[in-house]
Amino acid sequence: MLDVYTDEYFMKVALQEARMAYEEGEVPVGAIIVSNNQILAKGHNSTELLTDVTAHAEMITITAAAQHLGAKYLQGCTLYVTLEPCVMCAGAIRWAQLGRVVYGASDEKQGFMRYGKELLHPKTKLEYGVLHDECQALMQDFFREKRMART
Amino acid sequence: MLDVYTDEYFMKVALQEARMAYEEGEVPVGAIIVSNNQILAKGHNSTELLTDVTAHAEMITITAAAQHLGAKYLQGCTLYVTLEPCVMCAGAIRWAQLGRVVYGASDEKQGFMRYGKELLHPKTKLEYGVLHDECQALMQDFFREKRMART
Repeated sequence: MLDVYTDEYFMKVALQEARMAYEEGEVPVGAIIVSNNQILAKGHNSTELLTDVTAHAEMITITAAAQHLGAKYLQGCTLYVTLEPCVMCAGAIRWAQLGRVVYGASDEKQGFMRYGKELLHPKTKLEYGVLHDECQALMQDFFREKRMART
Repeated sequence: MLDVYTDEYFMKVALQEARMAYEEGEVPVGAIIVSNNQILAKGHNSTELLTDVTAHAEMITITAAAQHLGAKYLQGCTLYVTLEPCVMCAGAIRWAQLGRVVYGASDEKQGFMRYGKELLHPKTKLEYGVLHDECQALMQDFFREKRMART
């Protein structure tokens, strides 16, 4: 049987969220949280809209998934996010004890991986590079457009 | 002239917040954000009440101060928090570009200092150990009480 619920499938949903952020003038990062192939929560970066540096896609999605489940811990869940999480979001992922994290593009400047995978909970599985090119292109387009608007 | 607005003065207000958390059965951490000796926001750990691992005292206070100011960045502000911030909160403090952070007790297990001060924004000044003993005693009392309730 063909499995339609691949990592690529779910990353495409996260990318749709990222595109919504783009259209709202936000740095285009999108995230979803999935359990047993069911999407529990979707979110995208809303720091400008909410005037709140903590309103990253991952934070919004972790809070929403916990509300949906009525439980603080998300061990059985996978977080898909289009960009490598920052240190703040890696800390939140650790507290939530997410079962698995899958990210698309890397973030060399702000990404948590410069401090290593140990920022996450020891039981959290990590994967990256899923739809890397699409995730990265969206970021590059956004910042290119910003730069052009400034000149 | 005697300056009443000392670090100890503001840490006492943060300790009042921590005691509120204690009474609500939350890990007793309290925080406030101050600008020009004016308290802009107060908060205490509410992870149990809100079923949300991201609802740390610092996160709540950063969000509230930004709402109060109508601005994402808090360069002119000082965050007082009774316990050493975790990695998640250190990340949020970095994004908010807080001018100064003052914490009371250390947190060897979950505190951000195991990764070093560079987790914060390079312009953020850092102080710690203010009312250390009171801040630490509150945490110790809380966990002692929890252990006794279990036996």
